[in-house]
Amino acid sequence: MSLLVAVTWETQPWVDRFTRHLPGREIVVLGEEFDRASIRYVATWGPKPGSLDGLPNLEAVFSLGAGVDHLMGYPGLPDVPIVRVAQDDLTHRMSEYMVMHCLLYLRDHARFAAAQRTKRWEEDRSPPIAGDVRVGIMGFGVLGQDAAFKLKMMGFNVAGWSRTPKSVEGFKVYSGENEFDAFLARTDILIALVPLTPDTRGILNRSLFRKLARDGRLGGPILINAGRGGLQVESDILACLDDGTLKAATLDVFEKEPLPENSPLWEHPRVTITPHNAAVSEPEATARYIADQIRRYEAGEPFQNVVDRTRGY
Amino acid sequence: MSLLVAVTWETQPWVDRFTRHLPGREIVVLGEEFDRASIRYVATWGPKPGSLDGLPNLEAVFSLGAGVDHLMGYPGLPDVPIVRVAQDDLTHRMSEYMVMHCLLYLRDHARFAAAQRTKRWEEDRSPPIAGDVRVGIMGFGVLGQDAAFKLKMMGFNVAGWSRTPKSVEGFKVYSGENEFDAFLARTDILIALVPLTPDTRGILNRSLFRKLARDGRLGGPILINAGRGGLQVESDILACLDDGTLKAATLDVFEKEPLPENSPLWEHPRVTITPHNAAVSEPEATARYIADQIRRYEAGEPFQNVVDRTRGY
Ligand SMILES: NC(=O)c1ccc[n+]([C@@H]2O[C@H](COP(=O)([O-])OP(=O)(O)OC[C@H]3O[C@@H](n4cnc5c(N)ncnc54)[C@H](OP(=O)(O)O)[C@@H]3O)[C@@H](O)[C@H]2O)c1
Ligand SMILES: NC(=O)c1ccc[n+]([C@@H]2O[C@H](COP(=O)([O-])OP(=O)(O)OC[C@H]3O[C@@H](n4cnc5c(N)ncnc54)[C@H](OP(=O)(O)O)[C@@H]3O)[C@@H](O)[C@H]2O)c1
Repeated sequence: MSLLVAVTWETQPWVDRFTRHLPGREIVVLGEEFDRASIRYVATWGPKPGSLDGLPNLEAVFSLGAGVDHLMGYPGLPDVPIVRVAQDDLTHRMSEYMVMHCLLYLRDHARFAAAQRTKRWEEDRSPPIAGDVRVGIMGFGVLGQDAAFKLKMMGFNVAGWSRTPKSVEGFKVYSGENEFDAFLARTDILIALVPLTPDTRGILNRSLFRKLARDGRLGGPILINAGRGGLQVESDILACLDDGTLKAATLDVFEKEPLPENSPLWEHPRVTITPHNAAVSEPEATARYIADQIRRYEAGEPFQNVVDRTRGY
Repeated sequence: MSLLVAVTWETQPWVDRFTRHLPGREIVVLGEEFDRASIRYVATWGPKPGSLDGLPNLEAVFSLGAGVDHLMGYPGLPDVPIVRVAQDDLTHRMSEYMVMHCLLYLRDHARFAAAQRTKRWEEDRSPPIAGDVRVGIMGFGVLGQDAAFKLKMMGFNVAGWSRTPKSVEGFKVYSGENEFDAFLARTDILIALVPLTPDTRGILNRSLFRKLARDGRLGGPILINAGRGGLQVESDILACLDDGTLKAATLDVFEKEPLPENSPLWEHPRVTITPHNAAVSEPEATARYIADQIRRYEAGEPFQNVVDRTRGY
């Protein structure tokens, strides 16, 4: 009846929270001695190869983050349900990130911050308002839809794009490859919130950037990627910023994390970098969510947010 | 049947918009020759002394901004209705400003911007979420309530304070001097959106700052003032930032505008300065609003948003 916590960073906050939310269960961590036959559940983020082998009574693997690309490529991933995190705390954090970064661009905050540094009182006569700006959300799932709703409430003109057709009240949702170009052509700020899968790897590249709207109020298209670094081709982003294909980029995720010190992204004047903290998996809320899933399951109900292995998300 | 446009900055955009929205009317500007007896309406921002004298057929004065403090002190203000701007375009811009600046503090954006400048990948394990932060809105009128609604939608814990008691669904609204201390004691981020009147002049001072909550998640109380510069005592803000009474301040308005180059506010590391552009009176939307008011009035309906001269707003 044990839960194995397999994380590559500080374990203690996770153990503490699981202990509180799963009273009476044994919580063990990798590296300790424990009876492998006792493990029924694993909660993990980026487990080392081999660490999930030889768990004969395993019933489910929980991903500590919303994305599961780190597990999909895991050699010998146990053949049990993979359950990902999808809970309000994480979802709301992502929407905070998206609303903040879209507003920073809308209001040209970088210009006023620069003016402050030189003690210049900058005139601002006819700035755009949110309704003048078209936000396009690639990946219209749990995170994309919450961000869409909040961006719309702030006045932005929002549309979505997903793999399969969907109807979401209040939004035009484009879907599939057929409708991708039309979606890009009406987009001033492109938000990437798709999972990393074989279909989406490297999708944020020059050929996509060239299809974004060029007639908007922000002086050129803007990319915000908080999906996964593997979605983006960083050399294309840099080249497109420099030749004007892109106006600016806000990146929370990178091909390699932490972003290497020698990456030219760090110093680019029109790149905003955040350290993969758009929506952190906060231990308290995440442990509560996983404990709920375990209770549901043991009461005979199905897990929620089970990953479809063939789709890869 | 003329409208006199009396502004101290570029007149042309205003004349163009009024001409479009009031077809068939004569639109005149200060400095030109015109028949003073023909003027029925004035649209103004900070008129020079004397410029509104001798208009025998004047029926109303429109303030081009939401605030009218610039008119209340005007010597010989004509005894006609003073109508202020209160329209969605301006209101929504103010809410953009407030949501953006509250999110910048919530997410400690300054820390991550500084980390980028030194190419440092900053860890961020258990950041607060909007629900952990109490925003208090001083002035719960047209602008305060729209900002409140949107901040709440982003998850913030929001309350308001107004002069007279009011009940607004979804919010605790404190009112009057009696409830002021209780309002401040539950506030981590204080937003000032009260008008400047004899009662509110200098209200943002040390004695107020000391009453703000000190047990919040942001490391100390934060002030955001986009009301009027006359509300704030800048020497108190600086001293309180330096002795820890305040954590940070975002100021859109100043005792003197443009903010003088020698003001220490410009360089203070925990002060964010914007050049009175939180919510600009965009000519198109403002002219449309004023033209609507004129049509309402000429059709026998009352003006909306008429200033109460005894209250001063
Ligand atoms: N930076 C961070 O801090 C952070 C935090 C959490 C999550 N994330 C990232 O955010 C991603 C999204 O999370 P979520 O909870 O919103 O996932 P989700 O609910 O599964 O939604 C994924 C969306 O992407 C769409 N999609 C998938 N493959 C696609 C394709 N090939 N073409 C077009 N659309 C495609 C899906 O389409 P359908 O609706 O048709 O299935 C769905 O709309 C995660 O996978 C993770 O990588 C980042
Ligand atoms: N920085 C910018 O770009 C910008 C742009 C537009 C406006 N503004 C400023 O924003 C102000 C507010 O605009 P608004 O349209 O929201 O005005 P409003 O609708 O008249 O609301 C004013 C609010 O302040 C409250 N108030 C007034 N005097 C008070 C006092 N002595 N004590 C406590 N509360 C008091 C009022 O209380 P009651 O509800 O009880 O009357 C009301 O809730 C304007 O006056 C202007 O100075 C700034």
